[in-house]
Amino acid sequence: MLKLRTRAMAAILTLGMAGVASAEDYTSYVNPFVGTTNFGTTNPGAIVPNGMMSVVPFNVMGSSDNVYDKDARWWSTPYEFNNKFFTGYAHVALSGVGCPELGSLLTMATTGDLEPDYHKYGSAYTEETATPGYYGNRLTKYDIVTEVTATKRSSAERYTFPGGRGNILINLGEGLTNESGATVRRVSPTEIEGSKLLGTFCYNAQAVFPIYFVMRVSKAPSSQGYWKMQRKMEGPEAAWDPDNGKYKLYTKYGRELSGDDIGYWYSYDDLKPGEQVEVRMGVSFVSVANARENLDKEQAGLTFDRIAADAKKIWNDDLGRIRVKGGSDEQKRVFYTGLYHALIHPNVLNDVNGQYPKMESAENGHSTYDRYTVFSLWDTYRNLHQLMTLVYPERQIDMVRSMVDMSKEWGWLPKWELYGRETFTMEGDPSLPVIVDTWRKGLTDFDIDAAYEAMKRSATTPGKDNPMRPDIDLYLEKAYVPLGVYSGDMSGDNSVSHALEYYVADAALAWLAEQRGDTELARTLRQRSLGYKNYYSKESGTLRPKLADGTFLSPFDPRQGENFEVVPGFHEGSAWNYTFFVPHDVDGLVKLMGGKRKFVDRLQMVMDSALYDPANEPDIAYPYLFSRFGGEEWRTQKEVNRLLGKYFTTKPDGIPGNDDTGTMSGWAVFSMIGMYPDCPGEPFYTLTSPVFDEVEIDLPEGRKLTIEADRTLPSDIYIQSMTLGGKPLKKYRISHDELLKGGTLKFNLGQTPKK
Amino acid sequence: MLKLRTRAMAAILTLGMAGVASAEDYTSYVNPFVGTTNFGTTNPGAIVPNGMMSVVPFNVMGSSDNVYDKDARWWSTPYEFNNKFFTGYAHVALSGVGCPELGSLLTMATTGDLEPDYHKYGSAYTEETATPGYYGNRLTKYDIVTEVTATKRSSAERYTFPGGRGNILINLGEGLTNESGATVRRVSPTEIEGSKLLGTFCYNAQAVFPIYFVMRVSKAPSSQGYWKMQRKMEGPEAAWDPDNGKYKLYTKYGRELSGDDIGYWYSYDDLKPGEQVEVRMGVSFVSVANARENLDKEQAGLTFDRIAADAKKIWNDDLGRIRVKGGSDEQKRVFYTGLYHALIHPNVLNDVNGQYPKMESAENGHSTYDRYTVFSLWDTYRNLHQLMTLVYPERQIDMVRSMVDMSKEWGWLPKWELYGRETFTMEGDPSLPVIVDTWRKGLTDFDIDAAYEAMKRSATTPGKDNPMRPDIDLYLEKAYVPLGVYSGDMSGDNSVSHALEYYVADAALAWLAEQRGDTELARTLRQRSLGYKNYYSKESGTLRPKLADGTFLSPFDPRQGENFEVVPGFHEGSAWNYTFFVPHDVDGLVKLMGGKRKFVDRLQMVMDSALYDPANEPDIAYPYLFSRFGGEEWRTQKEVNRLLGKYFTTKPDGIPGNDDTGTMSGWAVFSMIGMYPDCPGEPFYTLTSPVFDEVEIDLPEGRKLTIEADRTLPSDIYIQSMTLGGKPLKKYRISHDELLKGGTLKFNLGQTPKK
Repeated sequence: MLKLRTRAMAAILTLGMAGVASAEDYTSYVNPFVGTTNFGTTNPGAIVPNGMMSVVPFNVMGSSDNVYDKDARWWSTPYEFNNKFFTGYAHVALSGVGCPELGSLLTMATTGDLEPDYHKYGSAYTEETATPGYYGNRLTKYDIVTEVTATKRSSAERYTFPGGRGNILINLGEGLTNESGATVRRVSPTEIEGSKLLGTFCYNAQAVFPIYFVMRVSKAPSSQGYWKMQRKMEGPEAAWDPDNGKYKLYTKYGRELSGDDIGYWYSYDDLKPGEQVEVRMGVSFVSVANARENLDKEQAGLTFDRIAADAKKIWNDDLGRIRVKGGSDEQKRVFYTGLYHALIHPNVLNDVNGQYPKMESAENGHSTYDRYTVFSLWDTYRNLHQLMTLVYPERQIDMVRSMVDMSKEWGWLPKWELYGRETFTMEGDPSLPVIVDTWRKGLTDFDIDAAYEAMKRSATTPGKDNPMRPDIDLYLEKAYVPLGVYSGDMSGDNSVSHALEYYVADAALAWLAEQRGDTELARTLRQRSLGYKNYYSKESGTLRPKLADGTFLSPFDPRQGENFEVVPGFHEGSAWNYTFFVPHDVDGLVKLMGGKRKFVDRLQMVMDSALYDPANEPDIAYPYLFSRFGGEEWRTQKEVNRLLGKYFTTKPDGIPGNDDTGTMSGWAVFSMIGMYPDCPGEPFYTLTSPVFDEVEIDLPEGRKLTIEADRTLPSDIYIQSMTLGGKPLKKYRISHDELLKGGTLKFNLGQTPKK
Repeated sequence: MLKLRTRAMAAILTLGMAGVASAEDYTSYVNPFVGTTNFGTTNPGAIVPNGMMSVVPFNVMGSSDNVYDKDARWWSTPYEFNNKFFTGYAHVALSGVGCPELGSLLTMATTGDLEPDYHKYGSAYTEETATPGYYGNRLTKYDIVTEVTATKRSSAERYTFPGGRGNILINLGEGLTNESGATVRRVSPTEIEGSKLLGTFCYNAQAVFPIYFVMRVSKAPSSQGYWKMQRKMEGPEAAWDPDNGKYKLYTKYGRELSGDDIGYWYSYDDLKPGEQVEVRMGVSFVSVANARENLDKEQAGLTFDRIAADAKKIWNDDLGRIRVKGGSDEQKRVFYTGLYHALIHPNVLNDVNGQYPKMESAENGHSTYDRYTVFSLWDTYRNLHQLMTLVYPERQIDMVRSMVDMSKEWGWLPKWELYGRETFTMEGDPSLPVIVDTWRKGLTDFDIDAAYEAMKRSATTPGKDNPMRPDIDLYLEKAYVPLGVYSGDMSGDNSVSHALEYYVADAALAWLAEQRGDTELARTLRQRSLGYKNYYSKESGTLRPKLADGTFLSPFDPRQGENFEVVPGFHEGSAWNYTFFVPHDVDGLVKLMGGKRKFVDRLQMVMDSALYDPANEPDIAYPYLFSRFGGEEWRTQKEVNRLLGKYFTTKPDGIPGNDDTGTMSGWAVFSMIGMYPDCPGEPFYTLTSPVFDEVEIDLPEGRKLTIEADRTLPSDIYIQSMTLGGKPLKKYRISHDELLKGGTLKFNLGQTPKK
């Protein structure tokens, strides 16, 4: 997927390698183009791990040469691999989400006469290159080489012009977000500052927030100014105004300019052939002053090449925390690309001075740790935070602190938090399992008292006062959410999905309540977490929507809901995608289904009959359920191997669907090293056969986790035996503590399933 | 025209009178509704003399109940007397101009459910009241009494609600200006701040500037937020978004919001019957911080009633500088209303801390005197600055200082300056006569060296480097501007009008050059100022456009150009409107026309044949030309009397056309006291019969100018004899010095023209 590299890029790679000394270059295995088709919605933009800033090629508007256009259909990523028409670089974008958001502050370079209309200034491109922290291409219309890199909170862009007239543009009117409105002000001949409104993510109309920016160009222009689309007037006024309904250029104005569709340009009359003009931008979600401080502090005196080399080194250090040997080159690329995608969100929210926008507030807080944002928790609570806890614990503890502080600021833990706003996207109470999971794995340096209070509040506050569980009253009363009562709409009701999430959350909280001596609450919560049994229908052999009167929805088709079809009871899935999702009480579900054999057969039928959706979260732990049963673990190994091979590749479509801020990638990362956290909130991993021969993971205080696999052939995917610290290991689900303290985990793999 | 007064208003009037002690209430003669029909484009809003802030009822949009709609036709005033649909109060508006501008920051009060669409929230009104510094009405749809008053840089608004639910709105999307784009930010539960772009006056696309504001409400609301018109989306995105293409309410957001069509609301859930909510707003053209300081410094602790009473007192002091006795009540009303309108522009630009936006710059200056703006000089150089010089010299000197400092900041003196931007509206070099006129009348405490340099620059810089005289090259070469050469358009070329203005300006500058010893330049300029002779056509008996080859335009109709019809050579007028406009060389024109008799007869023919346009500036001094000739002065007295009676009344249409920032009113004020400055740049007044029996004008240092008229009947309009300081006065044109030092000027008036 790595296309041609420019000479400049080659130089950067060399520089980067110098920084890493003799260590392996793990970034060379990352292909940022993976996931950029097939609705993976990742992008090849430049970013550092969990950075606020990303600089992303924007190619989803302005031309019918593009296959996908942000305004012509539902579209949620600034970049698509097959699109052709580049209209600039977006600053700060989301990776792997399903709703359009952010992706604004679009910078562009052009030659010739100034043209503020993106339909006209956009260009085809070639020589596309992307490596961690760097992206570049060549604009064929202009013969301009464009390159971008990033620090945590700022961007650096380098435009190499063919000479003559050239322009640098920033478009503040467009972006992936559906919010509009921006303001910009000239600060000096080479600096502007401003803000733009973002938000309404997944059409949560009140979840809006501003981004602030400061942008500099490296060379004072021959001329500069603003542009703004003029309101269309009718009649005699229109006749007088040559700019009516057009982009007007403000050539002599130098103070604030605001509007829906505005921009700013710098024009250079006489560039030398090959002359480079650089653009630097700092952003903040607090203020313009902080955006400037972020830019100054993170870039002081640094060249573009140095920033790119630094970004590469940071990535290499992060990726290198997991060192794999063996496996094919393709598998290494899949692995490190997955790890790369898992290290994008959540991302840092606070500025270099510690300020950040408080949760659901117009006020700013000051943080002594890294405050994080973009918590797509319905996705990430399943494996991404477990990956953080294991490999990046210093980040995971800050993520949990961030979540707990949100509850202090707003009263509630996050569900789908986006830059200080709760978007209420998807459902459940996913922060509870994340916090309990983290605590149980020994990361405890956060305010557990406040966390516990907030978790209890969410699990027990009745009525309209509880924004996290809109249907809590009947859930508390009946231990299930009846179909249609809250939504008033039987056809598109997500009642079963809601309740299934509450069960998982309440099970996690029950453990903590017990620990803290709230025995009665623990008992209640545990009991409540078993309410899924209400939904089990012997007739269909699945969970099934239930009405308020206790009867099941009829007629009922458990296959309905494939491909995001709207169905009663289930959100983004069919009954089959949800039926086995009781990770905290698998034994209970087994009993309901009539025993292990029936459970296993039915689960295998799901896997075999295309009733398993690899592209969305509810069923992604299904393959690991086989390993709960002695003699059936080979099915996990087989299915995981099959799914990895089929859905995770180094092609642009190498992620099965939305990456979901790294959760799909997280599934692949865990699966490829031979383990998976199959129940959020429980500190356990289910084991499977690693694809690599050796995996070494850095742990705190210089400790390491080593996983080895003995295989003769690459197709040796079945576990024959295991040892932990040299001692035989019989069970396939082990605790976090056992794993970390047990010494090397060793797999003996073979061709034959061990039944 | 004064409609019903509310009880609140009665209280204010009482308060106001207390402040004025036993002196006469001159404000009671002012009818701010005069000039609010007939395209007078004045307004009845609240303002203090030459104040930055005006608070103007806005009734020119949103309903077909309005006769005139700002978006349906060319429209240049926020208020029209016959319109019915009130949509709020504009903050900072222009008075008496012919192009749409300013009139934004629209505040409104409503009851019931919040409605952000002005088409729906507007209301009919009754009980309209306006006196200097105060305006009020009752909104019939809501039964809300609205009242507004102003300090120099801030507004106070009082809304008396019927009780129950009420709302205060500020609409930042609409306004009279054709520029759009604003930003607003919540500062506290009762304060917002922001800015809005204004400009493109008369479609000078680059003459744009921001207004900054801080607004407070007196009572914390039950809820508040922003609104913004949402960009219209198509397809699946539109289907998801309930706000698509509508005004969206931002109920939970509290940081910056920017856009083309935005606003902010405060809602009160439970107002008591008769409860009042007040709004206070400070503005600045420098910054939000200055807007806040202006508000704080000018309103600290003051009640609405006190601010209104202070405004009234300031007006009374200013109006009372000219005290008239005799004449009808109607004449007094016309006079003081005219004086009121003449004291609105130019208006103060600097903030209380002295800062102001520098001319054609994004930087701010600091002024130790009052920096003025809104210099409609093609109009005001004819009489308004002469009125300022005579009666308000402390303001006139600051106005001249402002003009000179503009030349220091930008290189050029103003032509039609608007908030730091040169709009290049109309033509000529009108600041030259203003400065020379002021200097020659003894107001000399300004930087005459810099002024002189700037004047010379304007009069002599050739080519494209001279923005003030776009056609200077051929003017310098031929002493006239040939038709069509510069415009490339024979049909709408203003060449003769341009040149006529240059002649007047160069004549004024010639005097100063001579004074300063630049004898050669003085000679050249004097010679150039006689270039009008090139345009004189014996055939038509008028000035006439001339081609570059020296031949006259043919065919030619000197009547063409009435009613603002576009014609070759003349701007907003016919050849007849311009032919006698050579005030600096009337004798020369007389010779061209074949002597006094022919000149007088032809001028009288113009006056008698409706070839005189009382509604625009070029010919407004015509009636005074008769007095240049012994035995013909009665014609001046007759014509001025006739024109005053016909065109200046106390009805809403009591100004003949655009008031032109007070110039039409200035004509009436001078004419009614018996004198007129008939040649800008020359310190002379031509005398005519006053309409009052006694006029007393305050002069600096406690001196007074007294004018008396002895008449038997009101219809005694002809001067029989005059005395100055008791000595017979034979001439009808006297110098400023003679007038001020001569003692009482006394007219004996009678029924019979003195031929």
